[in-house]
Amino acid sequence: LEATEEVTQLTRDDLCALDASDPIAAVRGEFVLPAGLLYLDGNSLGALPRAALDRVIAVTRDEWGQDLIRNWRGGARWWDRPSELGARLAPLLGARPDEVIVCDSTSINLFKVITAALAMRPGRRAIVSDPNSFPSDLYILESVADMLGHELRLVDCRGPGLDAALDGDAAALVLSHVDYVTAEVEDMAGATLKAHEAGALAVWDVSHSVGAIPVNLGATDVDLAVGCTYKYLNGGPGSPAFVFAAQRLQAEVRQPLSGWNAHARPFSFERDFVAAPGVERFRTGTPPMLAYAALEAALEIWGGVDLAAVFEKGGRLGDLFLELVEQRLADPDLRALSPREAKRRGSHVAYRHPRARELIADLDALGVLADYREAGVMRFGLAPLYLRYVDVWDAVGLLGQALAG
Amino acid sequence: LEATEEVTQLTRDDLCALDASDPIAAVRGEFVLPAGLLYLDGNSLGALPRAALDRVIAVTRDEWGQDLIRNWRGGARWWDRPSELGARLAPLLGARPDEVIVCDSTSINLFKVITAALAMRPGRRAIVSDPNSFPSDLYILESVADMLGHELRLVDCRGPGLDAALDGDAAALVLSHVDYVTAEVEDMAGATLKAHEAGALAVWDVSHSVGAIPVNLGATDVDLAVGCTYKYLNGGPGSPAFVFAAQRLQAEVRQPLSGWNAHARPFSFERDFVAAPGVERFRTGTPPMLAYAALEAALEIWGGVDLAAVFEKGGRLGDLFLELVEQRLADPDLRALSPREAKRRGSHVAYRHPRARELIADLDALGVLADYREAGVMRFGLAPLYLRYVDVWDAVGLLGQALAG
Repeated sequence: LEATEEVTQLTRDDLCALDASDPIAAVRGEFVLPAGLLYLDGNSLGALPRAALDRVIAVTRDEWGQDLIRNWRGGARWWDRPSELGARLAPLLGARPDEVIVCDSTSINLFKVITAALAMRPGRRAIVSDPNSFPSDLYILESVADMLGHELRLVDCRGPGLDAALDGDAAALVLSHVDYVTAEVEDMAGATLKAHEAGALAVWDVSHSVGAIPVNLGATDVDLAVGCTYKYLNGGPGSPAFVFAAQRLQAEVRQPLSGWNAHARPFSFERDFVAAPGVERFRTGTPPMLAYAALEAALEIWGGVDLAAVFEKGGRLGDLFLELVEQRLADPDLRALSPREAKRRGSHVAYRHPRARELIADLDALGVLADYREAGVMRFGLAPLYLRYVDVWDAVGLLGQALAG
Repeated sequence: LEATEEVTQLTRDDLCALDASDPIAAVRGEFVLPAGLLYLDGNSLGALPRAALDRVIAVTRDEWGQDLIRNWRGGARWWDRPSELGARLAPLLGARPDEVIVCDSTSINLFKVITAALAMRPGRRAIVSDPNSFPSDLYILESVADMLGHELRLVDCRGPGLDAALDGDAAALVLSHVDYVTAEVEDMAGATLKAHEAGALAVWDVSHSVGAIPVNLGATDVDLAVGCTYKYLNGGPGSPAFVFAAQRLQAEVRQPLSGWNAHARPFSFERDFVAAPGVERFRTGTPPMLAYAALEAALEIWGGVDLAAVFEKGGRLGDLFLELVEQRLADPDLRALSPREAKRRGSHVAYRHPRARELIADLDALGVLADYREAGVMRFGLAPLYLRYVDVWDAVGLLGQALAG
């Protein structure tokens, strides 16, 4: 194979040269990265943006401490943060600024959007999804189906079963954009089109793709979507999630977690509920401002980078990881689960190995933080904002040590 | 009247003397209180605990920044925080440590507990509540009733209508423990007993009572309860809320927002949902750790104070506010909405006045931060942990200035 011949020529110096010519290399300086650690778990929890600490201190000490309750509507205008951060996220989602709201957790937001979708297809009783979706999404879908007397149909969305599942009873198709185990990218445009042709709504979870690969919710005509901000977006542990609702649905869509934050006049405390006019109707209760503070700092970084360069680097980091494992490690038990083609892959690579759990522990001792997933899977997250090409070389070398050890 | 004669003798020195002999006076030192501000809005957003800033910095800089993803199960053990903080809250709720979990917002948690309650009374189709409940609670109840085809019955829970509403079709009675406008305390034991006699479950929102007055969920046999932590508990803007589920229900109760955090083996990412054994099944998604950090520091203060002394002081602060307004301010348009008897009142006092909105703005300019609620209501929160008796004297004096101005 030509590719293999090319790969065998790679050296550590080649990867250092890629770093030297990396147009986004300087962004790494905006993150706190512990000395001596190769952090390959940014697909689970992104690293701390340097500016986040100051922002969190300012919100705690100055805003809460000094101006107190005034900040909700005056002062720092905390009330506006869910919409403001939604607008900042929009370019990463291929969405309009008024189509995204930052709030609650991904599971809660999925509950909102699936119940909202079902309410828009009152005659239909089936939710269609894939058994390899993120398990938490399946728990929520199953729970909603049970609660409302609907049917949850789980089919391989890449197989011939999808067309049959999308019959006249299908209300919504709910899929993960990137497989959380294998990193395989789903065909958002194709599956959304199939859902629409069947008269169903298309709902996507982009938790594992936002900030990792291009997401084009607008261009692919997605109806509703959810995702988290603590992976590639670096919002911090448990940072607020988001809801996308296509502008064309906003006047009509309703979600049942309609707390006071979803009201058109929230501070009037009226007895009757009137939904806020836009995507704000997906809010529920009081947003946790300290968590928003860190996310705000994290999203500022995204505002200053060329997204195309980020995604290209992410693809290359993954290509190199997969190639270097083939080139440098000869372990017949190590099996790559992720696609070789960058366009079909998110920003992590996964391997199956009989000793995966022990290998992840050994890597931790060697200074490489990656993660283990049942059953027998190692995941290596390759966050392009703060990882260097040479980190991939070093991590693969240490994986070799772990395999040999 | 004897009471009036006594009141007319009060002077500022009397209130200073009360401060001098206040057994919990020193607790004020644990809070940041802006110079020159009388903060009477602790019923909406509690003041910043001094220790919160350091805790938030430690979680951001050291835990997230240095140990990263390791902290969920190792290191700082973030995963345990919702249960740990629930256990710390338990004494304030008259609950067992394993009956409380800290998570999400009050509105989301009310959605969980009301749907859980309805599922436990499958043959019954009515939710009973009071039209003066906190509006966000009513929005959620109405939404759940709409979604499930149930009936929402709103009756004055102090009037004769309650008995009629609690018929054989009533699945749950949902009430606010303290009225968010008037501060009137509901009869938790009495109303819970009525619900149980009718075969319904009793669900309470204690947002306006926890940390303000004794709450005895265990002794009054309450089934399920929710509340927030950013008012008298001082957890910070939008700090996580909580769920109480009586131990006797925990094996049976199920809630539909069953994300991965509610799973018995959350990190196994199994395809099928198995509910966590205890109150942990009321969790949903990833908890926001920066918000928990501040709350953790806030709850430590409560662990070190005599609750009886706190509640006694709260009652006295309210008594004095009401008495001093009568003694010092002669405005026929100013009408107290709160009960005179401390036992029947939460820890704020409310007044109606035709110029209420302007008065609140004028008070702000004079250094008194209180809040306005539609229609024509001023609320003065009297947080006993950090307010002094003399603050009540001074605030009433400035209210007099505003009325005169």
